[in-house]
Amino acid sequence: MNFPPLEELIQKFSRFPGIGQKSAGRLVFYLLSQPEEDVRELAHSILTFREEIGSCPDCGGLSYHNTCPICTDGTRDKSVWCIVEQQKDVLSIERTGQFKGQYHVLGGVLAPLDGVGPDQLRINELLNRIQSLKLDGKPPAELILATNPTLEGDATAGYLGKILESNFPDIQTTRLARGIQSGGELEFTDMSTLIRSLRDRRPVHE
Amino acid sequence: MNFPPLEELIQKFSRFPGIGQKSAGRLVFYLLSQPEEDVRELAHSILTFREEIGSCPDCGGLSYHNTCPICTDGTRDKSVWCIVEQQKDVLSIERTGQFKGQYHVLGGVLAPLDGVGPDQLRINELLNRIQSLKLDGKPPAELILATNPTLEGDATAGYLGKILESNFPDIQTTRLARGIQSGGELEFTDMSTLIRSLRDRRPVHE
Repeated sequence: MNFPPLEELIQKFSRFPGIGQKSAGRLVFYLLSQPEEDVRELAHSILTFREEIGSCPDCGGLSYHNTCPICTDGTRDKSVWCIVEQQKDVLSIERTGQFKGQYHVLGGVLAPLDGVGPDQLRINELLNRIQSLKLDGKPPAELILATNPTLEGDATAGYLGKILESNFPDIQTTRLARGIQSGGELEFTDMSTLIRSLRDRRPVHE
Repeated sequence: MNFPPLEELIQKFSRFPGIGQKSAGRLVFYLLSQPEEDVRELAHSILTFREEIGSCPDCGGLSYHNTCPICTDGTRDKSVWCIVEQQKDVLSIERTGQFKGQYHVLGGVLAPLDGVGPDQLRINELLNRIQSLKLDGKPPAELILATNPTLEGDATAGYLGKILESNFPDIQTTRLARGIQSGGELEFTDMSTLIRSLRDRRPVHE
C-alpha cells in the first residue's frame, strides 16, 4: 500500500530544521484533518510569501514587493546603523521598537572551519555602502555591531570593528551591551534584555 | 516595519501540532533561504496531496484518487480485520508487512469528558459493514481490536468487544498482544514490538 503524495510531503517536511520523519508525519496528518480550503490557503501563502518577500540589495534585509521598508523609510535615522548576522535579527530588533536607524545584514558569521571567510559575508557591501554615502557627505556616525553574543559573533564583531576603524576612523563602532546572555542567540532573547542591551551599547575597543 | 505574507505564514505554521511561534519563524526563514523552485514544489505538493488523498467511505482509511488501495485489493484476506483508532495506525501496521487483512478506522477513542461517545466514532459504520457482508455470506471471522494500549484505547476495545460479541457471537474478537508498551502509542512503537503484538494477539474476554 502506497500513497505517493503523502510520502512525498512527509519527505519534504522532514527537511525542515528541527522536524524529523515522525514529526513530519504528524504535520501531514494534521493537514489531512483540516478543511481543504484551509490547506489550499496554506499552499497559497507559501507561494505568495516566497514571491513577495526578497532581499534588499542595499542593506541585505527583507524586501517586500522589491522594496525595503527600512531603507526607503525617510523618517528613519540615517546616522546610526545596526550590523546584524541574519535577516531574522532585524525583525528581533524591530520588535523592541527602540531602534529607528538603518541595518546591514552580514548573512552569517566568520566560521573558517565551515569555509566562511570575510568574502562569504556582506562585508565588502558594507564598506562600499558607507564609502558611497561618505562621498555624498552623509555617512553614518555610529555602527552598532549587533552580532550574536557567541564565540563566532564576537570574533566577527572584533574583526569588523578593526576593519571599520581603520577605514572610517571618524565613525564610532559600538557593541550591544552585555545584558544579552553569552552563548545565546538574539532571536531568543527576551524583550527587556534586548532593550537594555540596545541602551547600554559600548565602544568595541575601549 | 511589517511583512504581511511573512507574518501570515508564521501564524499558519504555528497552528501545526508541536510548532510554536518561534519554531514557525524558523520554518519560514528556512523556506526563505531555499530556491524559489523548491518552495513552489512544496506548495504544489501540499495542494496535490490534499486533493488526491481522501477517506475511504467503507473502512475509513486513506484513499488515493477516491480509491482505497486496501478495500479494492482482491489479494488481501477478507476474513480478518484490524480495528484501529486513526488512519495513521493503518500505515503503522502496514509497515510491519505482517498483516494482509482488512481495516476499519474508528476515527478516535471513547472520551466522555471530551464529548466523544460511541456516536462520534465510526462504530455504527463497522456494525453495518459487517451486517451487510453477513447477508452476503462473507462476514469476517476475526476482528483484531488494535486500539492504542492506553486507558482510552483499552476502554474503547472493551466496549467494542462487548457490542461485537453480542451482535456477532460467531466472530472472534482479539486484541493485540501486550508486547506493546502500556501508555504508549502505536505510531511510535518499534517494528519488532509491533510484529510481536500482531502475532500474539489474544481474545478480548478470555
